[in-house]
Amino acid sequence: MKLGMVGLGKMGYNLVLNLMENGHEVVANDINEEAMQKIKSEGAEIAADYQAMADMLPKPRVIWLMIPAGDLIDQVIEKFTPYLEEGDILIDGGNSNYKDTLRRAEKLSAAGIQFMDVGTSGGMEGARNGACTMIGGDAEVFAHVEPIFKDISIEKGYLYTGKVGSGHFLKMVHNGIEYGMMQAIAEGFEILEKSPFDYDYKEVSRVWNHGSVIRSWLMELMENAFSKEPKLESIKGVMHSSGEGKWTVETALDLQTAAPVIALSLMMRYRSLEDDTFTGKVVAALRNEFGGHAVEKK
Amino acid sequence: MKLGMVGLGKMGYNLVLNLMENGHEVVANDINEEAMQKIKSEGAEIAADYQAMADMLPKPRVIWLMIPAGDLIDQVIEKFTPYLEEGDILIDGGNSNYKDTLRRAEKLSAAGIQFMDVGTSGGMEGARNGACTMIGGDAEVFAHVEPIFKDISIEKGYLYTGKVGSGHFLKMVHNGIEYGMMQAIAEGFEILEKSPFDYDYKEVSRVWNHGSVIRSWLMELMENAFSKEPKLESIKGVMHSSGEGKWTVETALDLQTAAPVIALSLMMRYRSLEDDTFTGKVVAALRNEFGGHAVEKK
Amino acid sequence: MKLGMVGLGKMGYNLVLNLMENGHEVVANDINEEAMQKIKSEGAEIAADYQAMADMLPKPRVIWLMIPAGDLIDQVIEKFTPYLEEGDILIDGGNSNYKDTLRRAEKLSAAGIQFMDVGTSGGMEGARNGACTMIGGDAEVFAHVEPIFKDISIEKGYLYTGKVGSGHFLKMVHNGIEYGMMQAIAEGFEILEKSPFDYDYKEVSRVWNHGSVIRSWLMELMENAFSKEPKLESIKGVMHSSGEGKWTVETALDLQTAAPVIALSLMMRYRSLEDDTFTGKVVAALRNEFGGHAVEKK
Amino acid sequence: MKLGMVGLGKMGYNLVLNLMENGHEVVANDINEEAMQKIKSEGAEIAADYQAMADMLPKPRVIWLMIPAGDLIDQVIEKFTPYLEEGDILIDGGNSNYKDTLRRAEKLSAAGIQFMDVGTSGGMEGARNGACTMIGGDAEVFAHVEPIFKDISIEKGYLYTGKVGSGHFLKMVHNGIEYGMMQAIAEGFEILEKSPFDYDYKEVSRVWNHGSVIRSWLMELMENAFSKEPKLESIKGVMHSSGEGKWTVETALDLQTAAPVIALSLMMRYRSLEDDTFTGKVVAALRNEFGGHAVEKK
Repeated sequence: MKLGMVGLGKMGYNLVLNLMENGHEVVANDINEEAMQKIKSEGAEIAADYQAMADMLPKPRVIWLMIPAGDLIDQVIEKFTPYLEEGDILIDGGNSNYKDTLRRAEKLSAAGIQFMDVGTSGGMEGARNGACTMIGGDAEVFAHVEPIFKDISIEKGYLYTGKVGSGHFLKMVHNGIEYGMMQAIAEGFEILEKSPFDYDYKEVSRVWNHGSVIRSWLMELMENAFSKEPKLESIKGVMHSSGEGKWTVETALDLQTAAPVIALSLMMRYRSLEDDTFTGKVVAALRNEFGGHAVEKK
Repeated sequence: MKLGMVGLGKMGYNLVLNLMENGHEVVANDINEEAMQKIKSEGAEIAADYQAMADMLPKPRVIWLMIPAGDLIDQVIEKFTPYLEEGDILIDGGNSNYKDTLRRAEKLSAAGIQFMDVGTSGGMEGARNGACTMIGGDAEVFAHVEPIFKDISIEKGYLYTGKVGSGHFLKMVHNGIEYGMMQAIAEGFEILEKSPFDYDYKEVSRVWNHGSVIRSWLMELMENAFSKEPKLESIKGVMHSSGEGKWTVETALDLQTAAPVIALSLMMRYRSLEDDTFTGKVVAALRNEFGGHAVEKK
Repeated sequence: MKLGMVGLGKMGYNLVLNLMENGHEVVANDINEEAMQKIKSEGAEIAADYQAMADMLPKPRVIWLMIPAGDLIDQVIEKFTPYLEEGDILIDGGNSNYKDTLRRAEKLSAAGIQFMDVGTSGGMEGARNGACTMIGGDAEVFAHVEPIFKDISIEKGYLYTGKVGSGHFLKMVHNGIEYGMMQAIAEGFEILEKSPFDYDYKEVSRVWNHGSVIRSWLMELMENAFSKEPKLESIKGVMHSSGEGKWTVETALDLQTAAPVIALSLMMRYRSLEDDTFTGKVVAALRNEFGGHAVEKK
Repeated sequence: MKLGMVGLGKMGYNLVLNLMENGHEVVANDINEEAMQKIKSEGAEIAADYQAMADMLPKPRVIWLMIPAGDLIDQVIEKFTPYLEEGDILIDGGNSNYKDTLRRAEKLSAAGIQFMDVGTSGGMEGARNGACTMIGGDAEVFAHVEPIFKDISIEKGYLYTGKVGSGHFLKMVHNGIEYGMMQAIAEGFEILEKSPFDYDYKEVSRVWNHGSVIRSWLMELMENAFSKEPKLESIKGVMHSSGEGKWTVETALDLQTAAPVIALSLMMRYRSLEDDTFTGKVVAALRNEFGGHAVEKK
């Protein structure tokens, strides 16, 4: 199949390589000229702008957006739409909020354009050699593009999830689970670190990955990480987040669902962004007021 | 009534003044000679040691221990017991773990000595001018010593809670609730502090104390604290704890009770003791491994 | 002052009585004709519709909306605006989300209408005899209407909180704290209920309200509740919520603030709405899969 | 090697088969005569009592206890010790609390008996075909028995963890992580279940196990579980627990460690044991007291 790829970042670039390796032809576009030339040297066609890309693609056009979630998606869609026709297919492969996806799908639907949402997991490595993809959208449209997903995904690693929005929703929940798993693993290692025993964490990760109940890819990554640095000495314990965990908690609240583990995983990330907290000041001040307990001074 | 007081710290000293003001006679003992002389100058008798105290008290003797919880209680009991007789009454007014209280009561019971456990709330101010007391022990013994508790407590501020251990248990749960309330208040002020608005926290505490649902003594103390320092600028947000919160959570676990708010209030205190966490390092390392997300370096 | 009141529900009706008792004249409106007649019999004027109310009020008009938060506020504003003039003052005294308040203020500002947001705490009793009010809006406008708030609030119980939105924001956070305090108290009583001791909860509430650190209006209400029913036998432990707790948590997330106690207070309410959970099924199924642990069948 | 096995339950029985398949000779004992005869038919020797077992084993004796954690371990050790000699090796392969292990090791050490603690993960399937084992104890003693662990464990699936107690401690923390991972997965599926989409959970588990960040053995087990019952219809969401999660939380508290995810995983299990809660009654009663909100009646 010949398709367009908008966005040649870490994920998009590797997806193009993956697609071409599987016999697909790709017309690529990015605002970064260097990335354009580099992918060209790998065998992709490049399009200077959306009009050019539209001209270079067979109909119905299939265009994959692999760009940062947020307003940028809306902007690209708005600029691209004039060059698209009824029946063309737009795929959002990024980490978009499913509510945005629903809104965009409705708008594009009015113009006769099919919108598909693809949640992609597995990192850059997956994008290059076999991703995990969760695809929402019209069932007939999916049947048309299924070969793409079959080829770029790891074996058994793609799923048609139902109507539009369901792919991004499922990816969001996947990330929520990921937050919880990571925090659970991390709390475990912190308890080990404070224990009276002296563990070799690389070895611990290794043994937990062979036959234990908690064996998992994340634990394999722990083995990698500890093999580089036995106590993660150089790393500061600041835990950033990129939105999907927050959306999962907000969605849980909207659905009146108790999701304490996912919520606390997120909140402990926020807590890690701060050296000191106003919460702590208030509690310390209160203890001083009623019990005369000394406060620590700055 | 004439009774003994072992321990002249912040709480014990004020209790003696309170007792004497209410017409009781007190024989006091403390390892701190200065505290002994000071309370003597206030009108108390002082006893150089436990034998002396035993000799100076009418029978059945009533002896109030107001010393730090833990092994010290056991040591004092062991040293004092030889001078006590069947029917004498030992009162533990400190923050002892109720399990220790049950153990001590059983042991003393074998020697015919009555053990009463008193949870005391209200801080030094309460000890001096009217405390809140929760008293466990034998009902008949309580009837005998009730005048003491009536006099030293604020009006309506004492309660016979049932068999031995129930006083310390109730005080423990009181403190667990206190942890939760304090953390709730503190989280609220942290949200205000990060809000786009510019509140005067002293005024906020004041208005919340007049007519609102959350009016409380803790909120009154917030008004005091913010009147001293509008943003608690000089205070470091380190939240120490002194055991009762931990016991409450442990007890909740023993009773298979979900007490998430009390548990998290405690855990956020532990978190505040650390500048950096191993948990954070692990999560940051994992994010780097699977997504190439940059870690912050020390 | 003569002002309009839209909404004669539990809160609005009592506010009108409170206002009149303090010498204000009120023109009231409600869709419920019975409430209209009832308040008329108490001495209020009534207006059949917004146009009538506008005609009956001196300029600049002061109109207090005391109606359920949400779309209804927008609808009333939209219907009322045509009868208002530059300089008129609209007060939203309900539990509106501060983001809606900001949006409404911007829109009304374009029409020259002043919008004030008032968070009201203290329940019906407060509305009738002295509420706690937190008022956001233009400072000069506040100065004009301050007598109203001074009169209807309990002494020291009103606060000008700053620019528009700050009143509803502060009320929201107040409710978040309230959620946390209530859950803390409730967890404490659950631990007592499962303890090996036999407490009289009415007496426990009473003693905790006299001299203890956790004395508070909520604890006074506990004494009331337990005096009606010693073990709350007839009440089902279903904890509903009405939005402000959820907004507080969402706001905490937006501000990247760890607020675990408020978040969990809310999530335990959601949990209480369910007899059984899918979460529980999943964990039970997993335990069965890896350990052969029996599952309970429906 | 020839060794003794006390306990022929789910785990012990499978371990004996595993050991024999790997060329070891086993003398087995259990209070269940049927299990004894069954394992005999599989080729094991059986010992009627501990004296008989002691007589049948070469010196230094190696005896593996695979019995339920708790007092039973103490009882078996006490009954067995008279027949043991200096240098004999006792292995506790069960889920014992590491504090008990430390206590037992100290006592046995006085009698010259080596005590080793083995945390075993992987369930029955692991016990039979290759477990994950974490072994604490004296390093020289470990060197002596290492062949056993090498043989019964999956490849790369055993680890000498250091001094006595470290094996059970590590297994405990492993289970704590397991609790957190399970709850995270379960919360995710609950959010899916309440979502506006219609997922096939077996397919979701399958796709998440191929290329995603959360691929794991637990997710494989989810696929198994959902393949049996698409919505786990027949299962009641009651989440029992068997001690190790609780110990992990208690240990976290002892080490002043914030482990909110593990703590809440446990507490949500406790919550699932109840149809109604006193916590809920208290909050519902309070809402009724201050706001007139209706309570649900039993």
